[in-house]
Amino acid sequence: MSGTPQSTMDTELDAVLAAAWDARAAMADLPLTTRADAMRAVADALDAAAGELVPVAGRETKLAEARLSGELARTTFQLRLLADVTQEGGFLEATIDPPDPDWPPAGRPDLRRMLLPVGPVAVYSASNFPFAFSVAGGDTAAALAAGCPVVLKAHSGHPELSRQTGAVVAAALAEGGAPKGAFAVVYGQQTGRTLIQDPRIKAGAFTGSLTGGRALFDLACARPDPIPFYAEMGSVNPVFVTEAAATARAAEIADGYVGSYTLGAGQFCTKPGLLFVPDTPAADEIERRLTAAVAGLAEAPLLNDRIAAGYTEVLQALSGHRAIRVLHAGRDNGNGPSPTLLGTTAADLLATFEELTTECFGPTSIVVRYTDEAELLAAARMFPGQLTATVHGEDGDPVAGRLFAELTERAGRVLWNGWPTGVAVSYAMHHGGPYPATSMPAHTSVGTTSIRRFQRPVCYQNVPQHLLPEALRDGNPLGIPQRVNGVLVLP
Amino acid sequence: MSGTPQSTMDTELDAVLAAAWDARAAMADLPLTTRADAMRAVADALDAAAGELVPVAGRETKLAEARLSGELARTTFQLRLLADVTQEGGFLEATIDPPDPDWPPAGRPDLRRMLLPVGPVAVYSASNFPFAFSVAGGDTAAALAAGCPVVLKAHSGHPELSRQTGAVVAAALAEGGAPKGAFAVVYGQQTGRTLIQDPRIKAGAFTGSLTGGRALFDLACARPDPIPFYAEMGSVNPVFVTEAAATARAAEIADGYVGSYTLGAGQFCTKPGLLFVPDTPAADEIERRLTAAVAGLAEAPLLNDRIAAGYTEVLQALSGHRAIRVLHAGRDNGNGPSPTLLGTTAADLLATFEELTTECFGPTSIVVRYTDEAELLAAARMFPGQLTATVHGEDGDPVAGRLFAELTERAGRVLWNGWPTGVAVSYAMHHGGPYPATSMPAHTSVGTTSIRRFQRPVCYQNVPQHLLPEALRDGNPLGIPQRVNGVLVLP
Repeated sequence: MSGTPQSTMDTELDAVLAAAWDARAAMADLPLTTRADAMRAVADALDAAAGELVPVAGRETKLAEARLSGELARTTFQLRLLADVTQEGGFLEATIDPPDPDWPPAGRPDLRRMLLPVGPVAVYSASNFPFAFSVAGGDTAAALAAGCPVVLKAHSGHPELSRQTGAVVAAALAEGGAPKGAFAVVYGQQTGRTLIQDPRIKAGAFTGSLTGGRALFDLACARPDPIPFYAEMGSVNPVFVTEAAATARAAEIADGYVGSYTLGAGQFCTKPGLLFVPDTPAADEIERRLTAAVAGLAEAPLLNDRIAAGYTEVLQALSGHRAIRVLHAGRDNGNGPSPTLLGTTAADLLATFEELTTECFGPTSIVVRYTDEAELLAAARMFPGQLTATVHGEDGDPVAGRLFAELTERAGRVLWNGWPTGVAVSYAMHHGGPYPATSMPAHTSVGTTSIRRFQRPVCYQNVPQHLLPEALRDGNPLGIPQRVNGVLVLP
Repeated sequence: MSGTPQSTMDTELDAVLAAAWDARAAMADLPLTTRADAMRAVADALDAAAGELVPVAGRETKLAEARLSGELARTTFQLRLLADVTQEGGFLEATIDPPDPDWPPAGRPDLRRMLLPVGPVAVYSASNFPFAFSVAGGDTAAALAAGCPVVLKAHSGHPELSRQTGAVVAAALAEGGAPKGAFAVVYGQQTGRTLIQDPRIKAGAFTGSLTGGRALFDLACARPDPIPFYAEMGSVNPVFVTEAAATARAAEIADGYVGSYTLGAGQFCTKPGLLFVPDTPAADEIERRLTAAVAGLAEAPLLNDRIAAGYTEVLQALSGHRAIRVLHAGRDNGNGPSPTLLGTTAADLLATFEELTTECFGPTSIVVRYTDEAELLAAARMFPGQLTATVHGEDGDPVAGRLFAELTERAGRVLWNGWPTGVAVSYAMHHGGPYPATSMPAHTSVGTTSIRRFQRPVCYQNVPQHLLPEALRDGNPLGIPQRVNGVLVLP
């Protein structure tokens, strides 16, 4: 293929799917060390290609070089961390129940269970992270770690970067011992719809809009054989400032908030879209400070025309809403907007909740003044599922406990005196949340436990050693964690 | 309520749901030991009530007393095993990433993750296990272990048993410290449909038919806020006998097979519905032996009229099918059928696969003769998702490895030289499988990992100790397994 890719032809998609299907057993059978080394080879190859890839990403997404270089570093770290987890082997959940004639109520045979790869996975990449949530991003890393072939639907916002990244990934995997068909990139919206309905695809993962994610989720559920579809669909990520915190740290909170909501021109799933402040003199100070900080920020281009048009539409609806005061109207120099800051009251927000909490993907946020704790808690209770929710409070803050209880029920990640942008790739990270933040609240798209989305358990009953996967054999030849008779045994 | 319950009124269902919703925080906050003890109290109370419950179950399901007593013992063991797992605390997956400024690419804050209860769960009980997959069955035990209130939709086949069991469960939970609203039983098919669509319900679990399970799954997915719906919908559980095994153990295999497929009048999700045997003289011996064994078995009543009617319909379609030979026609003395045995060839099965592999819920099975290994493997590849698949082979059997590879991809449990009926409740058990065996191939409805269906992760970022759940605090006050900086630390 040469030139910027267009929509993938049906015959080509079918060939890609056939190759992925044929590759599934060889992928599953790759030894853990080989699998891990192949992922590390992908990371190395991407780092080596940074000089070519980052400029292409800059041209297609208008994001700055420093941001893109940092995102690529995150992407290759993610591949290496998941490679380490793959090699360690605990994610297989190897479990051995030796036979026990006295096990209630009627004895048990030899039972051994582990998680196997689910089969070919369809990954839908995002516009706003052309590396970290795209061709070689978290979903791809997790699927490869699980041992699944990946068919990657590129985002239309960075097709050439997708083509070049895909070529690097495919070559490194092949060199690392992965079978032909382990990885391919496809293009086009209709291709994406066809892909998720193909019987050779056994799971899907997506990062993007609620509209797009829900449409694909519905297709996945409506298949003759439904498959899990893990969609991360963004949220408004409310931040709640207690009265004590507003009094103690008005300037710090204002500066931190502006930094978080305008980062990357506000184009993050975790951008804080609402700042709840008490309707006290401290709030005047926070608003003054916020407005001054925002006014000093420059225009920045948005990712692409579709996102710019969507941003303008939602911003105009919000700015013209009867319950909204415009605290600072962003400028637009023809090359993108500068940040906007809006204001409302909790009473107005409660009365028109859905109108004011539509995700505004771009550099706009709303300051919401609340009159008392009851109103603050009532507002917290209105939110549907969120990726994050944040509290700024002080030691011994009386409302913090109740606020935390409400927010923990609604968000995948709750923060104290911090900012939701910046999602570390680690063991304890959870990037998910109840619907509509995601379609599957039990799973994460970031962190080491993201692999589990692409695994399914199998139990082997009385199976002789030579027919068992190595992970389940006596003597633990792979040297991995095993749960034996209910007790975890570390190697 | 008194007398045999009818369909639950809408106002009553609403009150049940309101109580479950109000109970969710108190349920989640029950200390692990209290939660475990409450589950043990339920088990003790059920054992104590066996003398009342078993006769009611016998009257409503026509199952024999010994079978029902054994099933009740399994049910209370299941509650106690899941209580032990609850108390041990590893199922919370407590994970602590201490802050690390050097974590790539830009440092990480203090991150702590654990699994929390998902909220009120709707459980749909099965007809064929009035104890173990019913009111106090595996789904209920798993949801309680996770810390979720349960709204239990009773099966219409044993309403009075459901009412009495429900009263025992609710009383024991209340005495054990569970909040009001922790558990309730509701009745009626329309009630079941309303239940799964209610926004206060956060997950569903089901054991029963493909038609019923898929209908509820579709409702759960089509909600404005879709929720996970874990349906176990049965399968035909094929058994494959290699040529070597048929030659070596014809009599043993025939006797074992008859025992398994006629157990409980064939009314198990794991009943083996197809026996593949090589078309050799050994097959004649197996068929002779099977037929003789089946002919000696008595009539037994089926669970209820609806199941009897369904059985008769599928059996007549199979018996009259052009590709089927009737090896032994079951009798019916007006009080239920005796077992039937049918026969076909692999070539005919491959040509009319769906017609011959419709689940026949009751004491009928089909012997399938294959001519060579290629045909055996081709037949194995035809099967959609199964709860179980079984191989009977000999040491060094050349086809066993390839057969195992095909079956592992299609089944949740693969067995060697055994029979699929009998599902031990243990750490390594997996009772699930790809669609249509279940709606969620990543999860099990039996065994200790069944709890995970009713949990969702939450990550706490930089949260002070007093606002953290105890499971995530420094010093591990609960004494549970914790993963710290990626390394599992056992207490």
